[in-house]
Amino acid sequence: MITETEVRRALEKVSDPELGRSIVELGMVRDIRVADGKVSLTLALTTLACPLKDQIEGNVRLAVLALPGVQAVDIRLDEMTAEEKARLHGGEAREGLAEKLNHVRHVIAVMSGKGGVGKSLVAGLLAVTLRRSGHQVGVLDADITGPSIPKMFFPNGARPGSSPLAILPAETRTGIRVMSINLLLESEDQAVIWRGPLISGAIRQFWTDVLWGELDYLVVDLPPGTSDASLTVLQSLPMSGVVLVTSPQDLAGMVVRKAARMVVQVGAPILGLIENMSYFVCPDTGKQHDIFGASRGEVMAARLGVPFLGRLPIDPKVATLCDAGQLEFYGAEAFQPIADRLVELTPAARPALMPGT
Amino acid sequence: MITETEVRRALEKVSDPELGRSIVELGMVRDIRVADGKVSLTLALTTLACPLKDQIEGNVRLAVLALPGVQAVDIRLDEMTAEEKARLHGGEAREGLAEKLNHVRHVIAVMSGKGGVGKSLVAGLLAVTLRRSGHQVGVLDADITGPSIPKMFFPNGARPGSSPLAILPAETRTGIRVMSINLLLESEDQAVIWRGPLISGAIRQFWTDVLWGELDYLVVDLPPGTSDASLTVLQSLPMSGVVLVTSPQDLAGMVVRKAARMVVQVGAPILGLIENMSYFVCPDTGKQHDIFGASRGEVMAARLGVPFLGRLPIDPKVATLCDAGQLEFYGAEAFQPIADRLVELTPAARPALMPGT
Repeated sequence: MITETEVRRALEKVSDPELGRSIVELGMVRDIRVADGKVSLTLALTTLACPLKDQIEGNVRLAVLALPGVQAVDIRLDEMTAEEKARLHGGEAREGLAEKLNHVRHVIAVMSGKGGVGKSLVAGLLAVTLRRSGHQVGVLDADITGPSIPKMFFPNGARPGSSPLAILPAETRTGIRVMSINLLLESEDQAVIWRGPLISGAIRQFWTDVLWGELDYLVVDLPPGTSDASLTVLQSLPMSGVVLVTSPQDLAGMVVRKAARMVVQVGAPILGLIENMSYFVCPDTGKQHDIFGASRGEVMAARLGVPFLGRLPIDPKVATLCDAGQLEFYGAEAFQPIADRLVELTPAARPALMPGT
Repeated sequence: MITETEVRRALEKVSDPELGRSIVELGMVRDIRVADGKVSLTLALTTLACPLKDQIEGNVRLAVLALPGVQAVDIRLDEMTAEEKARLHGGEAREGLAEKLNHVRHVIAVMSGKGGVGKSLVAGLLAVTLRRSGHQVGVLDADITGPSIPKMFFPNGARPGSSPLAILPAETRTGIRVMSINLLLESEDQAVIWRGPLISGAIRQFWTDVLWGELDYLVVDLPPGTSDASLTVLQSLPMSGVVLVTSPQDLAGMVVRKAARMVVQVGAPILGLIENMSYFVCPDTGKQHDIFGASRGEVMAARLGVPFLGRLPIDPKVATLCDAGQLEFYGAEAFQPIADRLVELTPAARPALMPGT
C-alpha cells in the first residue's frame, strides 16, 4: 500500500522549472489522497495562466505513476492566494535581492502622529504631483492596520505582480508604483490584527523584498502614532526627510508636536509642515469657513523651526475622488507649489541614497 | 572620613511614615554630598504640602548626625515629578490593589480603526452626557502615543492624584474621572516613543493600578488601528461592548469595517455604530453640506448587522470647546439620544462586571 508520505517524497524531486526549487518546498502540492491505488492531489500554481503548467503537471504525473502500486493519478489545478504568492516570493526574496536591485533616490515619509488629518491624502497628492512633473514615483503604505493608499488609486482593486525574484509593486494608471498590505489581502476590509513586531516585519519587507526598481521618490505613508511602524520606518529606511501634516485643531497640533519631537529624537530631518483641512469654501457664498478652528500652521512651523509648506482646503471633491480611486485625476493646484518646494528641498545633486550604504 | 555610601546606608533605616517603606528604596533621597564633616542632601517628597514633612526631615537629620564624624546636615526639600510619583505608586500598586477595590459596572470602548474620525470626541461626549444623567463615569485614554482626552477636559492641565495605594485618576469639574498618559508627562507634547509591549503594559496598568472606585461607566478611548492597544483593551478588560465610529468617507468606512471584524474575531459585542462629521450646516445659509461625501452610516451598520446609533454634524463650536478644555460645557443635544440608547443597551439589571471574574 502506497502512503501520502511516499507520494510527497516522490514529488520532492519535481522542481518548478521557473523557480528551480522543489514544488513541495514551494508549497504547491496539497490534499494528497491515496485510495485503492489511485492518487489524487491538488497542484497550486502561482497563476493558472502559467505557460509551464502542462510541463509541471506532466512531471508530477510521471513521478507519481513511477511509484509501485499506483494505477491512476488525478491532478486538480488551483491558483495560490495572493498571500501565499507573497509568502512564496517573500521566501525567495529573503536574501534581499530586491533591495540590491532597487535604486531609490529619495525616501520621504509623510507623518502626523494624529490620525485623520490627511496623511494619506498628502502622500497620495505628493506622489501624483511628482509623477506629473516626470519623476519616477513609488508609494510605500506603512499603515498596516488602516491602509488607505490602494483605494485612492485602484478603482477595481489591484494585486502585486508576480516574479520569482521579488514582490512587484502594483502600478497605477499614471505609472505610480504602490505597495500596501491591502494588495495582499483577500478582501479590502479584512482586519490585520497584528502586534508590533509583525507590523515592523511587514514594513521592512516592503522595503527589502519589493522590486521598486529605479525611483526618484519613494513616498512613505505612515500610520498615526509614534510606536512600532513609525519607529521602523524612521530607523530602517534611508530617509531624505519627513513631511509633517497637521490640522488647525490645537488638539491635533499637540499630537503633531509629539511626532515632530520623535523625528528629532531619532535624528531624521524634517522637510516641513503642511496644514490640511485649513478651511472650507462654501460653494454658495464663496465664503471661507474655518471649520476646525483658525489656522495655526505657520505659527506651529515657526515654533518647531521647520519650513511651513502650505495650507490645503477641505475640498469635498477630494473625498469623492479618493473613494472612487481617481485621485490621480484631481487638479491638485493647491498642492503643486508644495511638491515643487519639496523637490527643491531634496536636490537631485545630493548623492543618491543607495539602500544598504 | 564619612562616605556617601555610609550616609545612604544610614538613611535606609528611615521609613516614610505613610508608606511604611525606606525613603531610600522609595527614591526620595538624592544628591548626597560629603565635605569636611558636613553632609548635604535632597529629600524629594511626593508633595511639599506633606503633613509629615517635618517628621521625615527630623528623622533624616538624626540618622545622619548619628554617624561618627558628621558635624552638620544640610537638607534641601524638593517635590517629585509626576512621573516619579506615578512610578512610586505604580511600584506600590503592583499587587493590583486598585483593581480589587474598583467596581466598574460597564466598560464601553470607543473604536474606529481609522484615525481622526472623532473617536475621542465621541468618548468625551459619551462621558459628558452619561455624567449629566447622574452616572458615575470614568474615561480611560488608551491612546498612548496620541492622547486627546485631557486637553478636552482640563484647560490648565491636570495631574493624577497621590495616594500610597494606587494612582488616583484626575477629576474634571463635573466629576468625570480621567486617566491618560498625558497626565504623567512633563509636557503635553512630549513624545511617547514606545513599541507595542510597553503600550500594552501602560494600558493594563491604567486598569489594574488606577483607583477608579465605583463607576457606572468606564469609557475607553482607543487609538486608531487594530494592533497592540486595541488587542490589549479588548482582550484584558471586561467589555460590555464596543461603540464604532465612522465618517461618511468610504475610505474611512473600509478601515472601520476592519475594526468591526477584529471586534467580532476577539469575541467582544458591538453596541452600535455612530457616524461623525456627517455634514456641515453653513451658518449663513442654513444649508447642509456633505463635506466628506454622502452619509452611509445606516447602510454600513445594516451591513455589519449592528444598531445604527446616530449621525453627528461637524460643529466648529466643538473644535473650539475641545481646544479650550471646555467640552463638559457643550450642549451636545445631538448626542443625548445616542447616550440614552447606549444606557438601554447596557442595562443596570445586567450582573455587574467585576474585574477578575
